[in-house]
Amino acid sequence: MEFLLQLLVTLGVLFLLARLGSMLISKFGFPGLIGEIIVGIIIANVGLTDFLGLEVDGVISFDSDIYTVVYAFAELGVIFLLFSVGLETKVKDLLGSGKPALLAAIMGVVLPFIAGFALIIALDGDMNAALFMAAAMVATSVGITARIIKDMKLIDTREARIIIGAAVIDDVLGMIVLAVVKGMATSGISVTSIIVISVQAVLFVLSVILFCKYVVPRIHDYFEARNKKQVSEGKVPFSFNKLVMAIIVCLGMAAFAEYLGLAAIIGAFLAGMIFADYAWEWGLEKKIETLTTFFISFFFLNVGMQVQLDTLTDTSVIVMAVIVIVLALLTKYVGCGFGAKLGDKNVDKMGFNIIGVGMMPRGEVGIIVASIGLISGMLPPELYAVVVIMSVATTIIAPPILSKLFRKKYHEEYRIVADDTI
Amino acid sequence: MEFLLQLLVTLGVLFLLARLGSMLISKFGFPGLIGEIIVGIIIANVGLTDFLGLEVDGVISFDSDIYTVVYAFAELGVIFLLFSVGLETKVKDLLGSGKPALLAAIMGVVLPFIAGFALIIALDGDMNAALFMAAAMVATSVGITARIIKDMKLIDTREARIIIGAAVIDDVLGMIVLAVVKGMATSGISVTSIIVISVQAVLFVLSVILFCKYVVPRIHDYFEARNKKQVSEGKVPFSFNKLVMAIIVCLGMAAFAEYLGLAAIIGAFLAGMIFADYAWEWGLEKKIETLTTFFISFFFLNVGMQVQLDTLTDTSVIVMAVIVIVLALLTKYVGCGFGAKLGDKNVDKMGFNIIGVGMMPRGEVGIIVASIGLISGMLPPELYAVVVIMSVATTIIAPPILSKLFRKKYHEEYRIVADDTI
Repeated sequence: MEFLLQLLVTLGVLFLLARLGSMLISKFGFPGLIGEIIVGIIIANVGLTDFLGLEVDGVISFDSDIYTVVYAFAELGVIFLLFSVGLETKVKDLLGSGKPALLAAIMGVVLPFIAGFALIIALDGDMNAALFMAAAMVATSVGITARIIKDMKLIDTREARIIIGAAVIDDVLGMIVLAVVKGMATSGISVTSIIVISVQAVLFVLSVILFCKYVVPRIHDYFEARNKKQVSEGKVPFSFNKLVMAIIVCLGMAAFAEYLGLAAIIGAFLAGMIFADYAWEWGLEKKIETLTTFFISFFFLNVGMQVQLDTLTDTSVIVMAVIVIVLALLTKYVGCGFGAKLGDKNVDKMGFNIIGVGMMPRGEVGIIVASIGLISGMLPPELYAVVVIMSVATTIIAPPILSKLFRKKYHEEYRIVADDTI
Repeated sequence: MEFLLQLLVTLGVLFLLARLGSMLISKFGFPGLIGEIIVGIIIANVGLTDFLGLEVDGVISFDSDIYTVVYAFAELGVIFLLFSVGLETKVKDLLGSGKPALLAAIMGVVLPFIAGFALIIALDGDMNAALFMAAAMVATSVGITARIIKDMKLIDTREARIIIGAAVIDDVLGMIVLAVVKGMATSGISVTSIIVISVQAVLFVLSVILFCKYVVPRIHDYFEARNKKQVSEGKVPFSFNKLVMAIIVCLGMAAFAEYLGLAAIIGAFLAGMIFADYAWEWGLEKKIETLTTFFISFFFLNVGMQVQLDTLTDTSVIVMAVIVIVLALLTKYVGCGFGAKLGDKNVDKMGFNIIGVGMMPRGEVGIIVASIGLISGMLPPELYAVVVIMSVATTIIAPPILSKLFRKKYHEEYRIVADDTI
């Protein structure tokens, strides 16, 4: 098939199937990305990749121009996704989120990291694989928890406030962990490189935070004042297209992060933070959401297409997956619950449970970390499959427990509402 | 450079330069796309394509993975652009636009087509080249004229109503012309193929128009009624994500048109027409605009990058361009002005002038047609350059004359307002 026709057919079919998968799974109350991953696994294993022009000689590969484009879409999808996570991460919330949230986030990052790292090292795994596994176990995906909180109208409870605060800090910590791991995997593991990369990653994140706190408001105020002055002088003030500015900063910082040997998504996330205070006022969230809607399905499809089905029937992989799931659930539960209790004596037994369970779902970030590991050759395909299973499992297991706990504590009715996501 | 880093650098730099070009040119009151084309010409001729990873062995080519992605973006850009033109083309406006608009549109399509075709044939050109040249001279780009009308608050004048109506019909006729030309170039020129393709193209367009008029409102009403019923029964009505549905229909119909041997953009345009009645209600226009904002710059950059600078210094090309520009201006002026006067006796001499000049700008559609001709090898690079020059020239020449004419007739003040388009 001619390139343009093949491209349109492939993009159309992939997008349609992904959204159907997303719609079906969300009828059962699960987040759409799980459906998209499953569709990806199916596509890669029923021979549809040939019809879609994604393979060359039976293997999905960059030798296919069409796959190259789909891969580019997938990468832009995660970049815009992390940019929009950044848009929701306001520096003043970050700095003012309080001791219980801070401790919950830190302990909820440290424990899973240690567990993941120790497990792979103990099984005689490679150092690089252990680092990526550890990093993939770190980041909470708070989306589904936030939706439950919102649906049950519990946003004003102590537990909800701690979870939301901890999730924001968790995002930033997760990015730092990924930056360090990616950097170490790129430039080799030595005491010097660990120090250099950690300092670099922390400096990058801190300088953006400081930039957001001290410089961004001044730039904003300067242009506001100038525009007001020009209007009062009867001139038409010159205004930038905010979406274009946001995209350029996002792509620029993603490229810069990748150039430093960190991951592109870290740059995108930090770029989002820069615009966080004005995202609503400028309508940026909605616009970036539109871009993400189009691109992100290709990412989760690609995640599924990378999962080799035979690894899923391999007993050792299944045993490994079960262990990792248990560790992932347990370490977040203990880490976050205990951290919150340590920071606020008023967190009772039930509060411990709610916060611990609410922070359990890993979702997309763990998978993104694992893909970076897979593509760079640091994470073997079996462990990649394990991370995908773990992310999906934690996202499925946590929500029903969480809503039961919330209901028990607050005697509220909760009903899963059909989602609006074909 | 590693693929992802190169991709981010290339997309970021291209997007930044394109929007800077667009911003600069619109300071002078010209549409942004001219700036983007000029930036494309510059990029291709100062050796930046090497740094951007767009070339292999000194030639911009699909052998470069990065160029393949940029090209895919460019194609999606025009597809979304034509989809949004379709979103603004309501079937009931089309069918009710009145005799003067209809005649202006038809004569404004027929005359330029004949002129373009005759010129190339007379110069001993190829039949295919003549057909593409003729098709590229047909379509009016009414965007800039509409902006002048809006800025001068003249939307309620007779001339403005005829121009807007004629532009809508012109779009549809332009698509039919392109469909026939593309089909003939694909399947060879013979009496049979001309008949088959013309029938196919007209049937495709007519069936979509009938579908829009009779079927779409029923589907819409069915779902409205069902949702209302479900709400009254206390159920949560299931709703589709409208943007996702629109994208799928757009890609699907673009692929179908391409499959038929017509052009992808025809399918996209017709897909837009299907949603035209609900585009505003569903917020589709804004969302598709966001997608277009991101993708379309790559199209106009690519248009510029395809222009070979040495053709622009070739005397015969320049002479040819001047002839084509004069013909393009004259045939639209006479065709539309005369057509309008024929349909409405109340159109005076000044009205003739305003309508004739208002329909002159060609803008993007002529360029899109020429690119299709260039890529399929039917239109030689020199004539491609001529079409690009003609499109840019008609877009620059018409607006100042038009606003002068409007001012003369309606004694209004008109001031070019700085655009909001970096």
